[in-house]
Amino acid sequence: MAEQQEVSNKQVIFKNYVVGFPKESDMELKVSKISLKLPQNSNENTILLKNLYLSCDPYMRSRMTTHDRPTYVESFVPGSPISGYGVSKVVESRHPKFKTGDLVWGFTGWEEYTLITSAQQAQLLFKIEHTNAPLSYYTGILGMPGLTAYIGFYEIGAPKKGDRVFVSAASGAVGQLVGQFAKLSGCYVVGSAGSKEKVELLKNKFGFDEAFNYKEEQDLDASLRRYFPEGIDIYFENVGGKMLDAVLVNMRLHGRIPVCGMISQYNLENPEGVHNLFCLVTKRLRMEGFLVGDSYHLHGKYLEMILPHIKEGKVSYVEDVAHGLESAPSALIGLFSGKNVGKQLVVVARE
Amino acid sequence: MAEQQEVSNKQVIFKNYVVGFPKESDMELKVSKISLKLPQNSNENTILLKNLYLSCDPYMRSRMTTHDRPTYVESFVPGSPISGYGVSKVVESRHPKFKTGDLVWGFTGWEEYTLITSAQQAQLLFKIEHTNAPLSYYTGILGMPGLTAYIGFYEIGAPKKGDRVFVSAASGAVGQLVGQFAKLSGCYVVGSAGSKEKVELLKNKFGFDEAFNYKEEQDLDASLRRYFPEGIDIYFENVGGKMLDAVLVNMRLHGRIPVCGMISQYNLENPEGVHNLFCLVTKRLRMEGFLVGDSYHLHGKYLEMILPHIKEGKVSYVEDVAHGLESAPSALIGLFSGKNVGKQLVVVARE
Repeated sequence: MAEQQEVSNKQVIFKNYVVGFPKESDMELKVSKISLKLPQNSNENTILLKNLYLSCDPYMRSRMTTHDRPTYVESFVPGSPISGYGVSKVVESRHPKFKTGDLVWGFTGWEEYTLITSAQQAQLLFKIEHTNAPLSYYTGILGMPGLTAYIGFYEIGAPKKGDRVFVSAASGAVGQLVGQFAKLSGCYVVGSAGSKEKVELLKNKFGFDEAFNYKEEQDLDASLRRYFPEGIDIYFENVGGKMLDAVLVNMRLHGRIPVCGMISQYNLENPEGVHNLFCLVTKRLRMEGFLVGDSYHLHGKYLEMILPHIKEGKVSYVEDVAHGLESAPSALIGLFSGKNVGKQLVVVARE
Repeated sequence: MAEQQEVSNKQVIFKNYVVGFPKESDMELKVSKISLKLPQNSNENTILLKNLYLSCDPYMRSRMTTHDRPTYVESFVPGSPISGYGVSKVVESRHPKFKTGDLVWGFTGWEEYTLITSAQQAQLLFKIEHTNAPLSYYTGILGMPGLTAYIGFYEIGAPKKGDRVFVSAASGAVGQLVGQFAKLSGCYVVGSAGSKEKVELLKNKFGFDEAFNYKEEQDLDASLRRYFPEGIDIYFENVGGKMLDAVLVNMRLHGRIPVCGMISQYNLENPEGVHNLFCLVTKRLRMEGFLVGDSYHLHGKYLEMILPHIKEGKVSYVEDVAHGLESAPSALIGLFSGKNVGKQLVVVARE
């Protein structure tokens, strides 16, 4: 009888730890079996999820590496499926907070079905209460990247009307929102991105005042001086390296640098050196790193702010959608060469 | 008659802009003349000072260089005397806030007598109201370095009882105070310095829990891990470069790095690169530069705190005293090789 309830479960398996730039071949497709009935005597944290949308995020690069000391995320386990944020539907649940048919966002596996079995896993699942917006938005504007942009820009950036804001990786999952939040706050905002198409998007779709393709600039310092003759009040840091060095000399007195990520460094064995940190003193700058995981208690407050903006068309969101688990490895790898335009996600199934 | 009131005025003249490590020969002694009577029809900002103590401070290195863009301090003027913090006695004054015989601390010239003539100069002079402590302390614990330690540690470091604090350049004018403030706040504090003598001073005079000679350590990361097995909550940054890189990987979650200076970098034509900034994200660190010049309004509050501590012997202060303007160039240069033990100052005259 039990065997009759088993279905095939396509999975994206992480093969082994990566040095340098990750490749599609660092992952492999595998088909295993899973029962659609929860095991007998399973504990109250047992939840079976059917995965709908999976999120490709830059921080996942760090999980492809082993680390000498504990860091902020656990490494993937070779031979096991990739895991990450996603949107799923509850097939069956022993957990009191979730029931069959519920939609959730949070941490799941890169596979068709995921069996949650621990309290630690269950507490990284959040029930979706508002379904007026596209469900896939919970991998982006309504999920982790949205809350990231909100915390970083408002809490750490502390914007004031008229502030001059610069965002790197500006068309990405987080950057496109930071730019729009800056406009909603009455700021002047400039974004950098890595293609002409993205630059157009920044200016025409997201309302950035200016945007430039950093790959076409000979001298980032000069570029920033051109767009910010009076200097930068808030730099929303997504890339690190040479861009950060150029920004430091262009900051204004008492500027703020929320540090969200440093994607230009993730595939380097040795990160580049940043040379202009003495500007922190001369300009009295505050540079502050943050992780969204510290702020999930603010998700409700964030939704109250963002949902009306989406409904009224005041904030838009661009997704780059890959179809099927087969396309997931290339979608993830593409993040690091900037192939994606907007939030990269993978559709596994439509409800 | 006027000529009879002229006296000789020994001066330390800045010769020309410096590249790399400054030398005594970048300055020269000169004797000029000055009238001890204020010029007729001089404006109300005119004050004649007799200089008693002059302060040698690391930030002065920046003033020996020309800068492409305006920075936080003006460069010295070749052919004119060095200027800096000092303690002086008012010989004569047209300024309503100062009268003959007043003692002041603030910005003055490296010469026996200095004529102040502008409002901008006059507002950088502060009348000394409390003379129970040694007057020279107004170049150190009661002056700019004292207020620097106070602002950086309390306002930016935000110490809590039990915090683990690391201070570099810990026996210097600022560092020795930060260590003692840390102990007063119930913290565990470790300092680094550049000689055995200084390390002894940190442990035996200033009450640091531990101290080490960074020049004798092969691996700064390992040294810090030894003294901070659970990581650093507050790093009071005075040196930059390799030490900062080693600190970043040893910080605890939500640590703070008040950035006071980066003396290891001041004589380099190109500052070293700092590679471990991604730790700002993984550990959610706040790194914040500051300049004491923004906080002079807090000087009175600081004196209220520090004067009783000095009187009760709870805080001590070590000065390295050079005698006479002739010794001023070598005293200043000595800062950058770490020759000084404690606060470096120059006695020009005793009242």
